[in-house]
Amino acid sequence: MAESGEIEARGHLIDSLILGKIFDGIMDLGGQFNVLEIDVGRRKRDASYVRMSVTGRDRRHLGRLLAAAYREGAVPVDGGEAELARAPRDCVMPDGFYSTTNNRTQVLLGGRWIEVENMMMDKCVVVRGRRAACTPVRDVRRGDMVVVGDRGVRITPPERPRSGVNVFEFMGSSSSSERPTRRMARSIASDMRAVKGRGGRIVAVAGPAVVHTGAAGALADLVRLGYVDGLLAGNALAVHDIELAILGTSLGLDARSASPAERGHRNHMDTINEVFKAGSIPRMVSSGRLRSGIMYECVKKGVPFVLAGSIRDDGPLPGVVTDVTDAQRQYKRVLRGADMVLMISTMLHSIAVGNMLPADVKVVVMDISQPTVTKLMDRGTWQALGVVTDVGAFLPMVAGHLGKRPA
Amino acid sequence: MAESGEIEARGHLIDSLILGKIFDGIMDLGGQFNVLEIDVGRRKRDASYVRMSVTGRDRRHLGRLLAAAYREGAVPVDGGEAELARAPRDCVMPDGFYSTTNNRTQVLLGGRWIEVENMMMDKCVVVRGRRAACTPVRDVRRGDMVVVGDRGVRITPPERPRSGVNVFEFMGSSSSSERPTRRMARSIASDMRAVKGRGGRIVAVAGPAVVHTGAAGALADLVRLGYVDGLLAGNALAVHDIELAILGTSLGLDARSASPAERGHRNHMDTINEVFKAGSIPRMVSSGRLRSGIMYECVKKGVPFVLAGSIRDDGPLPGVVTDVTDAQRQYKRVLRGADMVLMISTMLHSIAVGNMLPADVKVVVMDISQPTVTKLMDRGTWQALGVVTDVGAFLPMVAGHLGKRPA
Amino acid sequence: MAESGEIEARGHLIDSLILGKIFDGIMDLGGQFNVLEIDVGRRKRDASYVRMSVTGRDRRHLGRLLAAAYREGAVPVDGGEAELARAPRDCVMPDGFYSTTNNRTQVLLGGRWIEVENMMMDKCVVVRGRRAACTPVRDVRRGDMVVVGDRGVRITPPERPRSGVNVFEFMGSSSSSERPTRRMARSIASDMRAVKGRGGRIVAVAGPAVVHTGAAGALADLVRLGYVDGLLAGNALAVHDIELAILGTSLGLDARSASPAERGHRNHMDTINEVFKAGSIPRMVSSGRLRSGIMYECVKKGVPFVLAGSIRDDGPLPGVVTDVTDAQRQYKRVLRGADMVLMISTMLHSIAVGNMLPADVKVVVMDISQPTVTKLMDRGTWQALGVVTDVGAFLPMVAGHLGKRPA
Amino acid sequence: MAESGEIEARGHLIDSLILGKIFDGIMDLGGQFNVLEIDVGRRKRDASYVRMSVTGRDRRHLGRLLAAAYREGAVPVDGGEAELARAPRDCVMPDGFYSTTNNRTQVLLGGRWIEVENMMMDKCVVVRGRRAACTPVRDVRRGDMVVVGDRGVRITPPERPRSGVNVFEFMGSSSSSERPTRRMARSIASDMRAVKGRGGRIVAVAGPAVVHTGAAGALADLVRLGYVDGLLAGNALAVHDIELAILGTSLGLDARSASPAERGHRNHMDTINEVFKAGSIPRMVSSGRLRSGIMYECVKKGVPFVLAGSIRDDGPLPGVVTDVTDAQRQYKRVLRGADMVLMISTMLHSIAVGNMLPADVKVVVMDISQPTVTKLMDRGTWQALGVVTDVGAFLPMVAGHLGKRPA
Repeated sequence: MAESGEIEARGHLIDSLILGKIFDGIMDLGGQFNVLEIDVGRRKRDASYVRMSVTGRDRRHLGRLLAAAYREGAVPVDGGEAELARAPRDCVMPDGFYSTTNNRTQVLLGGRWIEVENMMMDKCVVVRGRRAACTPVRDVRRGDMVVVGDRGVRITPPERPRSGVNVFEFMGSSSSSERPTRRMARSIASDMRAVKGRGGRIVAVAGPAVVHTGAAGALADLVRLGYVDGLLAGNALAVHDIELAILGTSLGLDARSASPAERGHRNHMDTINEVFKAGSIPRMVSSGRLRSGIMYECVKKGVPFVLAGSIRDDGPLPGVVTDVTDAQRQYKRVLRGADMVLMISTMLHSIAVGNMLPADVKVVVMDISQPTVTKLMDRGTWQALGVVTDVGAFLPMVAGHLGKRPA
Repeated sequence: MAESGEIEARGHLIDSLILGKIFDGIMDLGGQFNVLEIDVGRRKRDASYVRMSVTGRDRRHLGRLLAAAYREGAVPVDGGEAELARAPRDCVMPDGFYSTTNNRTQVLLGGRWIEVENMMMDKCVVVRGRRAACTPVRDVRRGDMVVVGDRGVRITPPERPRSGVNVFEFMGSSSSSERPTRRMARSIASDMRAVKGRGGRIVAVAGPAVVHTGAAGALADLVRLGYVDGLLAGNALAVHDIELAILGTSLGLDARSASPAERGHRNHMDTINEVFKAGSIPRMVSSGRLRSGIMYECVKKGVPFVLAGSIRDDGPLPGVVTDVTDAQRQYKRVLRGADMVLMISTMLHSIAVGNMLPADVKVVVMDISQPTVTKLMDRGTWQALGVVTDVGAFLPMVAGHLGKRPA
Repeated sequence: MAESGEIEARGHLIDSLILGKIFDGIMDLGGQFNVLEIDVGRRKRDASYVRMSVTGRDRRHLGRLLAAAYREGAVPVDGGEAELARAPRDCVMPDGFYSTTNNRTQVLLGGRWIEVENMMMDKCVVVRGRRAACTPVRDVRRGDMVVVGDRGVRITPPERPRSGVNVFEFMGSSSSSERPTRRMARSIASDMRAVKGRGGRIVAVAGPAVVHTGAAGALADLVRLGYVDGLLAGNALAVHDIELAILGTSLGLDARSASPAERGHRNHMDTINEVFKAGSIPRMVSSGRLRSGIMYECVKKGVPFVLAGSIRDDGPLPGVVTDVTDAQRQYKRVLRGADMVLMISTMLHSIAVGNMLPADVKVVVMDISQPTVTKLMDRGTWQALGVVTDVGAFLPMVAGHLGKRPA
Repeated sequence: MAESGEIEARGHLIDSLILGKIFDGIMDLGGQFNVLEIDVGRRKRDASYVRMSVTGRDRRHLGRLLAAAYREGAVPVDGGEAELARAPRDCVMPDGFYSTTNNRTQVLLGGRWIEVENMMMDKCVVVRGRRAACTPVRDVRRGDMVVVGDRGVRITPPERPRSGVNVFEFMGSSSSSERPTRRMARSIASDMRAVKGRGGRIVAVAGPAVVHTGAAGALADLVRLGYVDGLLAGNALAVHDIELAILGTSLGLDARSASPAERGHRNHMDTINEVFKAGSIPRMVSSGRLRSGIMYECVKKGVPFVLAGSIRDDGPLPGVVTDVTDAQRQYKRVLRGADMVLMISTMLHSIAVGNMLPADVKVVVMDISQPTVTKLMDRGTWQALGVVTDVGAFLPMVAGHLGKRPA
């Protein structure tokens, strides 16, 4: 039997396409809606308001329709407080747990809207006293109070930015290899300068292609100049960067002459052995064995880095976090408070980081593969920019525009 | 000052392109060579023999030239025994350690050629008594006797197969999306049947796209029919497979109607929670909660599976090996004795597996991305076949040809 | 000095995202708007109405803002008739000519809204008496009356379909290789059957990969069964199809055994020579020299086909339209009245066809390359479906579902 | 019944991998061989000699085996003169016509080895008096004397270069996106300088992505500086280049600010109209309407250009060669005597050019798509270099290194 519910939404419903998405979601799922009241902002900065009833085939169907609308920022008119239930065991969420989006989220508790801290996608919300925190399943402890159902949860989807001039605005959010490459490099550089200028944090996520394509020097420059406040990578980036720094080769290619070195990655293995001999990357720097490169600049500058292990690693190097859940925690620590994230030629680590980011963080994706760029940008944000490019040529351009320290 | 050395090689030097590769390697590195003696097999099954001197600019250059030649199967004429040195510390190889290829390798010790066990690429060789084993750096223990230098090491590169009719032979070793797709499916199926017919082992490495594209049923069939003796995957394959089995969706797409389900991966998170509630995948099977799919068939059939953790995992599920060095060890255990490996839509795990395989194992790579296929096939073997295809359409074809148990 | 104008729009402004796009366009260009009146349909089938003023920095800026809004379906409140000017010379449009979209378009002339015939993108509109026709620059003749400016032009953007169940609806309009492949094949087949069931026309655009991947038989079946009302292709499709039919090979690959035939495309050249000997493809059929394949079925069935020449052609075959402007005209003739277009593994011909299609024609794109699929789907329509797949596996699935003639 | 034949080959059989390829070809086709005599060059510059018998299952099989061997440079021991037959009609080659490779080819006529002129792949050889010319089927005239069979035809496959230092040598011939990008740019620049320094000819083949990515200025510079002796492109390159020059936009993207211009390609159509108004591109230059860009520099410098039409063209512009067989002839005219060809971001025109080039011309392929680069490089030459890169970043680097005219 048909069931109905009433919802409302406020904000830049039309120009941020929010109202369209609410309608979309309901229609996609085969639901019905009636707009009961609508007040559209007259000017582009005015907020709009809509109240509508939603009708589903039955209670369950209505539940899915409403959940879809809530994800776009709607709230029930007859709100009510968030409901909580205890986690029955460690690592087990109560049935019907509220599954998070990466948007700003608040829960209504004791008559107050409480901000959920540390927003990430696909987690649950644990409430402790007057605080609510986005929590991964492995961190749930028996007895934790977890939000269940959609009631009393308010999402604020990102709004389309309207002012200021930055790369995200004048590029739109689609990726393409057919963009004026050099202009985009300059825009990204100027955005980075602006972020640093207002005291923001920039985190770089980088894969080994940065080294193979010859962009290691550029990334090292960005670190040295103060444009990188944290580096998230894997074992391979560090191995290749250090191989280049101490042996002058990268995966068997002599970087000075680009001549093919012997097959079999001898230098690669020697590099790994050298780091084991030193005991750690910082000790290679302090002993003078490592004198240049990305890792060197991070150590010298005190920029935090996390090298996450993966199953394909050679070695892995000492210092690589081989437990992936531990690596996730360390990544999150570095990402906290980030204003901008550069994702450079690594799908694995970039997906990991994308899962950890709130929707309002600016993301720049640089990769030679269009499917990779497209996939990484799909986070429901207005602040993602994808550049299908050769980082070996592109990153030096960006670094060239930032040739001196941020003010 | 110019330095020379004398080397020799035996085998199907010309038709397996070995002699060409030896010449190649020397010329690429700017070396000189003189052929001193050559005896080319008259018929295509005859072995050839070549003896030649190699000249480098100096001792170091000569060393690189010889190392390149050795990798293709040449040995020094004035052989001599393999040299050993002690590992100075745990996880540290002695300087000048011999870095392995993935080809069959023997070391001359006490006048006897000893087979190196468990061949993999980019490792060292540890000798214990009369046995030699390929050993990753993290498994090296202080005091281990490690082969150093190239002397007394003999490599046997894979020879081009000449007889029998299998997919590797009549397809050549290059990848392309422009191949008669259905014929390749039939050939792969018949090769799999042949491998099982002679008691061989087949290991599958699979990514979550197997589930997303709708091929989970086909892979489950292959397991059930006995064509898969081990499954290597990550957290995502298991989560998506179980979501499909218990909720009928895959990442929010309803698999029966392919209608877009709600955004936000609710079912995905519910699935993870269900596995945590059960405690493990096998317990989900024994309790009757999980009744179909890839993981179910593995549990029922007793097929060993290893789920390696990665930094992008949601959960990860209980049972996922979150430490990557531990996961590597478990992968290697499953791969031991494999005759054929199917790499299906996963670059990460396939690269990991490729690094662990000796060159004589047959490898079939199936992926929609040509760069991925090309990269995975580049292992210096004659027995790699790449198919640029849509596994959602292709794997069911393969399984269709294998509709009953191997004899 | 700031300039303003007043516009209005009617239709499913919100659920078809039209209003959002109008706001978008104005904001992207740095303009201002005030909503003067809005009436949102209460139910999802109700039409909405909006009236708004738009303000630009100066007359020229306002012109650009309005042009952007008009393209999304807005019209000036103070309408006025369309303005006409004479073409000064053959192939030369008057300055300020109205440049078309691929949406349904009407022009106000003599107080009546006249439908523009034969809509295509990026053309001009020539008025003759009471008729208006979309006209390419090369067909403009001196003295032709051409619409100039935006006044008196009304565009009707495609509306999001709401009812019926077809593949476009439940798949959404994005492409991905991560879709349940077999289900999509079934949906496309059922959509094709529905189109034919109501007397519609289906046109196929196909590249030579159809033959190379082994899908020639499937496409030939679709023709034979009556599911293809026109075939648009190039020289290569015909050559490879005929080579397969008369010599059993495709580009040197023996299709029965998939064994690599000799290099150098001997059979390819022989095939071309055979067609020249016969004089034409139809004569090869009538003489009994060609007895199977895609081209054969087209000839037997009387399905019109156009083979457009391209600079990379071998031969090209007799019958190939070597003049590209002539080929464009012939393509358009076959496309007239098409309800559905299948674009199969050819970027060149599919882009050409995309440029010729009104926005309301259903388009299905099948290709193994995601960038190609993405590019082809970007036509501003709600009725495009992209499948990143291996046509060698996929097309036979589609044909399998359509194993008998349409009712 | 088994049939045998005797063949011989001379040259750098082993280091240029020729002998391996002959063995390969015979084995791939299931043939047998016996090496009767072999003389391997002792030093790497020495030529080798081999004489062998080849055995097939029957006469036809032997024919295929020998044809495969001949393509790699073998010749029959019992040579004999080339056989000729008359073309029965215009555009029809006699049965059994010899189908060319792109390697240097000679035919034995009247006891003399005559060089075949104007070598291209997949054509026939027409003999007129003492001259032989590679001839496309459409240029064959009734009564032309055409070489039939393999007898009396000698192919000289390209040899691997051994000396000199150029980009082709130290990069090898495989493509990869994981190369030190900037170093490759420098190497290509230095190779271009060397070619011009010895009076060679460089031809560029370019697609519209050159303009979209912002590399039009770089290519214009190369023309102006004298590094481009011919430009082969299509309609789109010219339209986009001229749009950028006269309106400052490229496909609706404002090139100064990279802001998205209005949809619908208004400027694109205006540009086409402007060229029609001027009558031709050279007249736009002479009238002062066109003052910069790639086409402008070609006109000013007198560099020949050919714009080949394709079915997807808008316009096409006056001057575009709309008949593709005519365009092929004009392309060939520009390519005659080329020493180096740059293929920049266009698959269509690059494949066309690849089909027209003898194997000894250096080819550099630059494209963002790895499958495209791989496909274009597969011409059996040692002198092809593929760079998977973003031309918008890469080409300016190359031009930057060539900032002054060649000496």
